[in-house]
Amino acid sequence: MGQQVYIFDTTLRDGEQVPGCKLNTKEKLELALKLEALGVDIIEAGFPISSPGDFESVEQIAKAVKNATVCGLSRAVQKDIEVAAQALKYARRPRIHTGIGTSDYHIKAKFNATQDEILTRAVQAVKLARNFTDDVEFYAEDAGRTENGYLARVIEAVIAAGATVVNIPDTTGYCLPHQYGEKIAYLKNNVPNIDKAVISCHCHNDLGLATANAIAGVINGARQIECTINGLGERAGNTSLEEVVMILQQHKDLGFYTQVQTQQLNPISREVSDVMRMPVQPNKAIVGANAFSHSSGIHQDGFLKDAQTYEIINPEEVGAEGSKIVLTARSGRSALAHRFQKLGYQYNRNDIDILYQSFLQVADRKKEVEESDLHAMAKAYTPEPAMA
Amino acid sequence: MGQQVYIFDTTLRDGEQVPGCKLNTKEKLELALKLEALGVDIIEAGFPISSPGDFESVEQIAKAVKNATVCGLSRAVQKDIEVAAQALKYARRPRIHTGIGTSDYHIKAKFNATQDEILTRAVQAVKLARNFTDDVEFYAEDAGRTENGYLARVIEAVIAAGATVVNIPDTTGYCLPHQYGEKIAYLKNNVPNIDKAVISCHCHNDLGLATANAIAGVINGARQIECTINGLGERAGNTSLEEVVMILQQHKDLGFYTQVQTQQLNPISREVSDVMRMPVQPNKAIVGANAFSHSSGIHQDGFLKDAQTYEIINPEEVGAEGSKIVLTARSGRSALAHRFQKLGYQYNRNDIDILYQSFLQVADRKKEVEESDLHAMAKAYTPEPAMA
Repeated sequence: MGQQVYIFDTTLRDGEQVPGCKLNTKEKLELALKLEALGVDIIEAGFPISSPGDFESVEQIAKAVKNATVCGLSRAVQKDIEVAAQALKYARRPRIHTGIGTSDYHIKAKFNATQDEILTRAVQAVKLARNFTDDVEFYAEDAGRTENGYLARVIEAVIAAGATVVNIPDTTGYCLPHQYGEKIAYLKNNVPNIDKAVISCHCHNDLGLATANAIAGVINGARQIECTINGLGERAGNTSLEEVVMILQQHKDLGFYTQVQTQQLNPISREVSDVMRMPVQPNKAIVGANAFSHSSGIHQDGFLKDAQTYEIINPEEVGAEGSKIVLTARSGRSALAHRFQKLGYQYNRNDIDILYQSFLQVADRKKEVEESDLHAMAKAYTPEPAMA
Repeated sequence: MGQQVYIFDTTLRDGEQVPGCKLNTKEKLELALKLEALGVDIIEAGFPISSPGDFESVEQIAKAVKNATVCGLSRAVQKDIEVAAQALKYARRPRIHTGIGTSDYHIKAKFNATQDEILTRAVQAVKLARNFTDDVEFYAEDAGRTENGYLARVIEAVIAAGATVVNIPDTTGYCLPHQYGEKIAYLKNNVPNIDKAVISCHCHNDLGLATANAIAGVINGARQIECTINGLGERAGNTSLEEVVMILQQHKDLGFYTQVQTQQLNPISREVSDVMRMPVQPNKAIVGANAFSHSSGIHQDGFLKDAQTYEIINPEEVGAEGSKIVLTARSGRSALAHRFQKLGYQYNRNDIDILYQSFLQVADRKKEVEESDLHAMAKAYTPEPAMA
C-alpha cells in the first residue's frame, strides 16, 4: 500500500473564486457531498468571512458532511478566524486554515511590515485558531518566493504554536518542479519539529507546472496535496485533482496511495464543469473529451494490436467512455478494416487497399469519417472475385 | 543570452491529427506562415504519405516558408521516406523526420520483431533519408518506456548513420519529470557520438506532465522541444509551446533562450483555437481567458498595491489583454474602492465600508458585479456629511 497522501480539495474555495464560477449554497452542498463520495480527505468549503452567502455555504456543508474534514479559510486576523470557527461549529471534523504572506513581496508591498512582525502574527493566528479546534492548518502565502531560511523559522514557530498541517503554497505558480521539491526537502531537513505536522503542497498553474510541482513536493516529504477538480482556481488554476491521483496510482513505485475512487473522476469532472460553467478543453489529461481518442494511423494500428502500446490508463479506471478510434485522413488501413468489420462487412486485404483510396478522398474533405460514409463506400464497392 | 533551445512546432502534424481538428491546405498554409512569424525554428507540416491532401499541404508549406525548417513525418519505411522527400522538394530547409518504436510494447506487439531487427530498420531509414537531405531527425517511438541500454544503442547507431537530431518521445505520457530528465542525462553520458546530434523532447500530456518533462529534458541536455500551440495533440495532447517558452523566459537562471516572439502567443493561440475549433479552457496557463484575472479579495488587495505580489508575467509580454480585477462575492473593499474611483466616484473609507455591505448582497446573488450594478449602488447611496 505504501504511505497515504491526503487529498485536500479546494474546488469550492480556490476553484469557486474564479470569475464566472460562483455557486449558490445548494449547488455547493451538492458538490461537497459528491466530493466526499469521491473519497477526498479534506473539503475546503469556503472563506466564511468573505460574504454572508459563503458563511452559510460553509455552515451547511459542515452540517452535512460525515467523514471528510471540513475546512474554512481565514487570514491571520482575529475576526476571520472567529467567523471561520463559527461557520464550522457543526462540523464533525473541523479544520481552520489560516495564514499570511511570507515573501518579501508580500511583507513589504502588502503589509508594510517586518519579518519578525509577520512571524508574530502567524503564531498568534495559529494559537487563536487552536482555541476552536485541534486541527489547524497554516499557510505561508507565496512560500514559493520566500527565502528558505525565514520560511523554516516561520514553519517551526507555527508548529510549536499548534499547527497540525503546514501549507507551502507556490502562490504565483513560479517554481520549477526541482525547485519546489528542494524547498520541501529543505523544510524536512531544517525544521526541528517538522515531523509533528503534515506538509501540504498548494501549487498554481501559471507556467503549466502545478501538477509536476505537487508531485515533486510529495516525493520530497509532503503528504497532502491541495487541488481542484479540472484544475480550476485563480488565474491559470491549481493542481488538478484527477492528474495527481492518477500519477500516484500509475507510479506505484513511488510508494504512495490516496483514498480517491478513481472511477468517479470523469463523472465529477463533468458535474463541476456543468455547474460552474467552466469548459474542460478536449486535450485535458484524464478528463478531456479526447483523452482516450486515437486518430493517427500509426497509433490506431498499434492500439488495435495491443491497447498498451498507446494507452497507460484503462479509460474505465477513471470512469471515461471506452477508447475511441476516430477515422480521419490520418487513419490507416487497419483502423478502416477494424471499423468495417464492426459494421458487419467481410473484406480481405485487397478490398481494404481499394476501399482505403475512396476513404482518403472522403477523409481529406471531412474532419471525421462517420458510419454513414462507410456504408456509402461499401455500397459503391464491388469486391473483385477471389482467384479460382 | 545563454544557449538556444530550438522550438519544433508540430501543431500542423500532431495537433492536426486530433479528432475534429482537420484543416484544409489553405488553412494549414496560413497557420504555417504565422508560426514562422512567431519565431519557431522548425515547422512539422504533416505526414505526407498519409493522404493526398496532407502531401499537398506539406508541399505548399515547403514552397511558402522562408526561414524556418520545414519537416515531414515518415515511418521507417522506404515509400514513406521517398514521399516525404518529394513533398519537401521545394523547401529551403527541408527536414525528414523518420523513426520506429523501440519499447518492448512496440517491438513485440506492433512489429513482432527483435531489438536487432528494429535497430537495422532504424539505421536503414536514416541512411535513406540522408540521400534526400542533410537534416534528418530520428524518433525512437515510446522511448519513455524503452530500456535505456537498448535506447542508447539505437541512438548511437542512427547518429552514426547520419541523424542530426534524435527525438526521445514519451509517446504515452508516462514518465515523471525526474525520470524523463534521467533518461536524457543517460543518453548524454552513454552515447559516445551524442554531441554530433541535437537531442529533442517530444512529450505527451496523459498525466498532465508534458511541459514539466520537456523542461526536465532541456535541463539535462536536450536542445529542441517539440510542442504545439495550446498543447493540442493525440489524446491529452503535447507539450504547450506557450508554456515552455515562458518558463525558459521567466527562469533566465537556467541559461536558455528561444527565438519566439512572446507577444504573439495569445493572438496565435486564439487563431489556432478558432480555425481548429478546439476550445482553450479559461484556466489554461498563459493563454486561458482567466490566466491574468484576479478575483479573490486577498489577491486583489495585494495586486493593487503591487502587481508582482500575485503576477509573475506581465500580460502584455504574452499579448494578453491587461490583468483583470473581477468583482465577485470574494472581492474585498480595496477592489471595490478601486473600481468606484475608476468610475469617477469620490468615496472615503467610511463610505466604502457602508457600500461594501450592499455590494456583498448583490455579489452573493450574481456571479460577477458589473459597472451598472455599481452605478445603481452609488445612486442609492448618500454619503454621510463629513465631521465639521
